[in-house]
Amino acid sequence: MKKFINAPEQVEDQMIQGMVKAYPQYLRKLDCGNVVVRSNKKEGKVALISGGGSGHEPAHGGYVGEGMLDAAVAGAVFTSPTPDQVYEGIKAIATDAGVLMVIKNYTGDVMNFEMAAEMAQADGIAVKQVVVNDDVAVKDSLYTVGRRGVAGTIFVHKIAGALAETGADLDAVTDVAQKVIDNVRTMGAAIRPCTVPAAGKPGFELGEDEMEVGIGIHGEPGTHREKIKPADEIVDMLLEQILADIDYSGSEVAVMVNSAGATPLMELYIIYNRVADVLAQKGISVYKALVGEYMTSIEMEGFSISLLKLDDQLKGLLDAGADTPAFKA
Amino acid sequence: MKKFINAPEQVEDQMIQGMVKAYPQYLRKLDCGNVVVRSNKKEGKVALISGGGSGHEPAHGGYVGEGMLDAAVAGAVFTSPTPDQVYEGIKAIATDAGVLMVIKNYTGDVMNFEMAAEMAQADGIAVKQVVVNDDVAVKDSLYTVGRRGVAGTIFVHKIAGALAETGADLDAVTDVAQKVIDNVRTMGAAIRPCTVPAAGKPGFELGEDEMEVGIGIHGEPGTHREKIKPADEIVDMLLEQILADIDYSGSEVAVMVNSAGATPLMELYIIYNRVADVLAQKGISVYKALVGEYMTSIEMEGFSISLLKLDDQLKGLLDAGADTPAFKA
Repeated sequence: MKKFINAPEQVEDQMIQGMVKAYPQYLRKLDCGNVVVRSNKKEGKVALISGGGSGHEPAHGGYVGEGMLDAAVAGAVFTSPTPDQVYEGIKAIATDAGVLMVIKNYTGDVMNFEMAAEMAQADGIAVKQVVVNDDVAVKDSLYTVGRRGVAGTIFVHKIAGALAETGADLDAVTDVAQKVIDNVRTMGAAIRPCTVPAAGKPGFELGEDEMEVGIGIHGEPGTHREKIKPADEIVDMLLEQILADIDYSGSEVAVMVNSAGATPLMELYIIYNRVADVLAQKGISVYKALVGEYMTSIEMEGFSISLLKLDDQLKGLLDAGADTPAFKA
Repeated sequence: MKKFINAPEQVEDQMIQGMVKAYPQYLRKLDCGNVVVRSNKKEGKVALISGGGSGHEPAHGGYVGEGMLDAAVAGAVFTSPTPDQVYEGIKAIATDAGVLMVIKNYTGDVMNFEMAAEMAQADGIAVKQVVVNDDVAVKDSLYTVGRRGVAGTIFVHKIAGALAETGADLDAVTDVAQKVIDNVRTMGAAIRPCTVPAAGKPGFELGEDEMEVGIGIHGEPGTHREKIKPADEIVDMLLEQILADIDYSGSEVAVMVNSAGATPLMELYIIYNRVADVLAQKGISVYKALVGEYMTSIEMEGFSISLLKLDDQLKGLLDAGADTPAFKA
């Protein structure tokens, strides 16, 4: 294992410490483990919390700030945070307007966030939740009952966060988060694995000419393996699955081409070039494109495409101001 | 070679096309090759142009927009753009206030930008230039007489771009660009090489426990090779060289921890964690930190640290608004 780290057991702590030191204007770390909250708590609004295992940076700490999240909880790499961690995060950000939990659909995450919510509710804090399940590749995977939650989660942070910032109530913020979930679909592929520091070796292996299609953000298996193809053909294959799942025809969409961590921007732009052409051919209009590292898998080399079907409400909230370490609008 | 591309000879064109399709609100491509300019030309201000070989994305097209560049010229991967390309870029953005060229110090870039400037001057366009040479690792390297220009270039784009946006004249914008160059120093290291698509194989090789210290942004040799060490020790080694080159003591600095392309954010934050501690110990105050992909080397796995010594003028211009695909402030 060749990485810029000090010791595998220090990775999560030192990463979070580095993030907080880099962005003190946005982030403050709680004393109870790797939970980051906004450095300036904003009262009177619904507070948003998300999180999950580490290894998906900048998710989720990079999205803590004005117009997005109020707290992010980081477990060990690819491991759900504990209920206690989530509970401390909820308590730190809770306002009279309540708390919305944005959970990616993994069994451990859902269970631990729900336990934390029960603890918080016992304290009199109003807590609601949404579960993101945007990955069209597989149903009932290694760590999930139902579809997995992947890069589409960032759209939930952005849009629900923007509505919360306006002072909307907990039901309204929950509803718009669910509306994003109902309208976003994602699928990815990868050509090189990643190594969890504590494991010391890659989570899977691929032949020199192979790719994993429909891969998950922890390197879990997708729909199948096949020989790597030209980028345009890979894009066509992923888009076909996404477009078969929701009727996007005639609509405006936000597109995210997300790096799994090690894919160079050069390749993401080549991928986007094809995405744009295919959508134009199908009469789907791109309202906004995001190309970069949004929900990574350490240094996996791969990408995902997300399409979010928009209406006027979602467009306005997508465009609304956001000021966080990893997302500014 | 395993990459998300269609064909090596299409990489540059498809990348630029994808970038322009993703960001039509910021970018327009000229018909004469891979030159991108602001989609809305702003008259009455000094216009900034930069560029170089492709492979450093988001540099430089990602920095075209309000408060930074007016044009970016992209050569083939790791190859200088031609004088004709640069000349077309200058003509497209030139205003009565003149044009400033921000050139990274590589022999081919300097020569071709200077030839373009002569052509533009013959047309009556006022053109000045600065040459960025922030890399403290080596003098007189493979492609350079003098020090190489690397990630510190982004600070020149940001700060000179901000002053240009205020309507300052060409001399003033040139002077502040040179002031940034005089006050910024960078050094990097890498643990895995990158592959130029047209070459089809890595530009260099490293043993499974080796790193290249002081590496350039095209993978050119640095000061030496040695066994990989804990991240903190690598940071200490790089900072020692940087801090020996300028007296930063007692000053405020902007810090950039820049990914060479494939280094996960997790590791960049671990690196920043040490940078922050060392600077604090030395009484150097961090005014602003930037951690991410700013000047990459395709999918090289490595990073660089840049320190920019600030005064009140530079702080104000660093904080000023910027709205580009890759940099928002």
